[in-house]
Amino acid sequence: MPLNPTALKEFFEFLSIPSVSSEPSHHADVLRAADWVERYLKGLGFQTERWETPGFPTLFAHFQVNPSQPTLLIYNHYDVQPVDPLPLWTTPPFTPTIREGEVYARGAQDNKGQCFYVLQALKSLLEKKGTLPLNIKLCIEGEEEVGSAGLASILERHSKALQADYLAIVDVGIPASHIPSVTLGVRGLVSLDVTFKGSSTDLHSGSHGGIAYNPIHALIHVLAEARHPDGSIAIPRFYDGIQSGSKDDFDLIFDPQQYQEQFKALPVGGETRYSPLERNWLRPTLEINGISGGYAGDGFKTVIPAEAKAKLSCRLVPGQDPQKIGECVAEFLLEKAPKSMQVDVRIRPGTGLALRALRDSKGVQAFAQAFSEVFEQPCRFILDGASIPVVSALAQLSGAETVLVGLGLSTDKIHAPNEHFGLDRLERGQAVIVRALEILGEG
Amino acid sequence: MPLNPTALKEFFEFLSIPSVSSEPSHHADVLRAADWVERYLKGLGFQTERWETPGFPTLFAHFQVNPSQPTLLIYNHYDVQPVDPLPLWTTPPFTPTIREGEVYARGAQDNKGQCFYVLQALKSLLEKKGTLPLNIKLCIEGEEEVGSAGLASILERHSKALQADYLAIVDVGIPASHIPSVTLGVRGLVSLDVTFKGSSTDLHSGSHGGIAYNPIHALIHVLAEARHPDGSIAIPRFYDGIQSGSKDDFDLIFDPQQYQEQFKALPVGGETRYSPLERNWLRPTLEINGISGGYAGDGFKTVIPAEAKAKLSCRLVPGQDPQKIGECVAEFLLEKAPKSMQVDVRIRPGTGLALRALRDSKGVQAFAQAFSEVFEQPCRFILDGASIPVVSALAQLSGAETVLVGLGLSTDKIHAPNEHFGLDRLERGQAVIVRALEILGEG
Repeated sequence: MPLNPTALKEFFEFLSIPSVSSEPSHHADVLRAADWVERYLKGLGFQTERWETPGFPTLFAHFQVNPSQPTLLIYNHYDVQPVDPLPLWTTPPFTPTIREGEVYARGAQDNKGQCFYVLQALKSLLEKKGTLPLNIKLCIEGEEEVGSAGLASILERHSKALQADYLAIVDVGIPASHIPSVTLGVRGLVSLDVTFKGSSTDLHSGSHGGIAYNPIHALIHVLAEARHPDGSIAIPRFYDGIQSGSKDDFDLIFDPQQYQEQFKALPVGGETRYSPLERNWLRPTLEINGISGGYAGDGFKTVIPAEAKAKLSCRLVPGQDPQKIGECVAEFLLEKAPKSMQVDVRIRPGTGLALRALRDSKGVQAFAQAFSEVFEQPCRFILDGASIPVVSALAQLSGAETVLVGLGLSTDKIHAPNEHFGLDRLERGQAVIVRALEILGEG
Repeated sequence: MPLNPTALKEFFEFLSIPSVSSEPSHHADVLRAADWVERYLKGLGFQTERWETPGFPTLFAHFQVNPSQPTLLIYNHYDVQPVDPLPLWTTPPFTPTIREGEVYARGAQDNKGQCFYVLQALKSLLEKKGTLPLNIKLCIEGEEEVGSAGLASILERHSKALQADYLAIVDVGIPASHIPSVTLGVRGLVSLDVTFKGSSTDLHSGSHGGIAYNPIHALIHVLAEARHPDGSIAIPRFYDGIQSGSKDDFDLIFDPQQYQEQFKALPVGGETRYSPLERNWLRPTLEINGISGGYAGDGFKTVIPAEAKAKLSCRLVPGQDPQKIGECVAEFLLEKAPKSMQVDVRIRPGTGLALRALRDSKGVQAFAQAFSEVFEQPCRFILDGASIPVVSALAQLSGAETVLVGLGLSTDKIHAPNEHFGLDRLERGQAVIVRALEILGEG
């Protein structure tokens, strides 16, 4: 099933819409992406609904085959990450370009690419048979990259519509392009904005140096204290009650040398007593995603800034409550900060619990079989260190057996310049979805 | 001698030129400011020379009265600091505005204001007597705010022209608007650019969190290690051989409550075992003037950035060599950094030694007398925690008795939004310069 010119044109149309949910300047573009998906699904014969949220709408679509058949709910998102640093893109992020069989664009993989092969799978089944192997519901949201607060806030209201037997979260990856795998879990997430304010105005570092307390110093000392030298987090209660399971339950596939070649980075972040994949799959993390303060432009400015800021996020494992962990972090920062600093710590909306799927469930097994058949080798069972904040709540509310699937690779540069996705994987993704639907439809 | 409308018009012209030496986009403006000063001095009858440097030119001007008279060399600068954060300015930084007797503009005090009252003093003396009380040389540079590398590089070439009996550095302040004082020293300076690079590209903090070493974490841990909990610097050899003198040699005038009211900051930065003014005058400091890494815009981006950066500066006291201290800092950062980081540390050009003037010298005493007479109370002797990097070399090369004077106040917001300077101080500054020249001319 190679991607035909019409499909490619449609995919490029979808990718050309700069639906960056985190940037107010792209507000209208995000809505345009929702329109695009809605039109597409209507064209396939789906009944669509636009669920308004305090943020961007969630697109809900339904194709009812027969009430006696089981129902599969599929989750995707139509929003994308910001593009900066823009100068590092070889071609513009919203001008999709093919190079060596890979489509380069923001969202090419995460998640427009993975959403698009789902749409293509549905289209091909409908074109071939005029119907689908089972009832299909789609839940395609527009705020995944900012924490899914909108969808989270309206889930309960729509719980009836969301009832399903199986839930497939199509937003994850495989360890290598030739290794089929189903993902049994993602980490949870809580993120925070931190501001340390030292004075009412920027101060001259000569006239005030030694007198005023530099808020950059105060901030970095407290943040440094939050991690032990062995990479573990020093915040009280951070690890309390975690239930992340054993590494023996999963296929740990990690090649340190390949990692180093791909990212020009040694896999040495995090807790030194765990292996890289254990740290990424089974252990929570605290990362500083952004730090700023003072003068960072060309040249130099001898300033003690009025304030310094940091953006933090924690990836969480089963047993950790995002709100409680956020509060632990906030308490730690407030307690450790010098008394002379005005400290503001805010837990951002869009937290999410870690999610675990059951390996022996029918949903997981159906996708595993589909992967094995399409890739012609046994499917592996893995975890993903990333987060899809809303999916825990979605899984719970839908009452469905959950499975996480996708054909992303760690080299796709999602969330970075030059994001890309292979045309071969678009095709295989479509094939996996088609086959999984057939298996689930056979009952 | 109230400032007449012509003088005010001239001053505003000077202030309107955005001569920001650190920003390449203002290159032409810096040269325009040099032109303005040159034209002004030619108009007064000075012989002017434009000393080209690898950076911006230094303006040298000479008014020869009589070879048998002593010569006073006066130092000022025509460049200014950057203006950001621009939104915090009440009126635009290069549209001078008077509010409640204060002129608001970038450079209103530092150093265009202080340069302008020198020009006015010379003008008034020339208008009154047709000549000056002694030979005057002016050295007005254009790179003080970026470390004076240009002037430093050409000083020796012009050592003959710079010979003088007295050297007045007119770029400092007084402790309060009613307290006359002469400054007996400034601190030295060395500044550094630091980059920690962890990977070849930004990484997704979910997919890589726990695997990759976040360069922000690495950077802040090393920077945090550079300071002990008591505020002292933990870098080996940092304090070696310092000879900053005793606090009893100076008039320490500091009101913690007033400081807190003015800057909404407690004076609790730096080494806890010294008082605020000791820390600012007699102790060296290490400040982080800027830090950046990851996403700092609106919203949130779950990224482990490829690199993190910091801009550092050390204020130095007598006995500290700027280059050696820069090397100590660089060595410390390189040694403490995790081995997986690519670390780049660069000592910036424009370092400067600390300078100390002799209290009993004729130059110091003449200005002290002038201050006492104009302010009608005894002159105090203070230090200044700031730096004027080139003046140590200038003092040495000119062979002159050095004195540092000025009418800046700590509340003038130099290097910050809403910099301002009082019309009353412009007048008194002019009067002090006139009187000091008369005293020195009397021999």
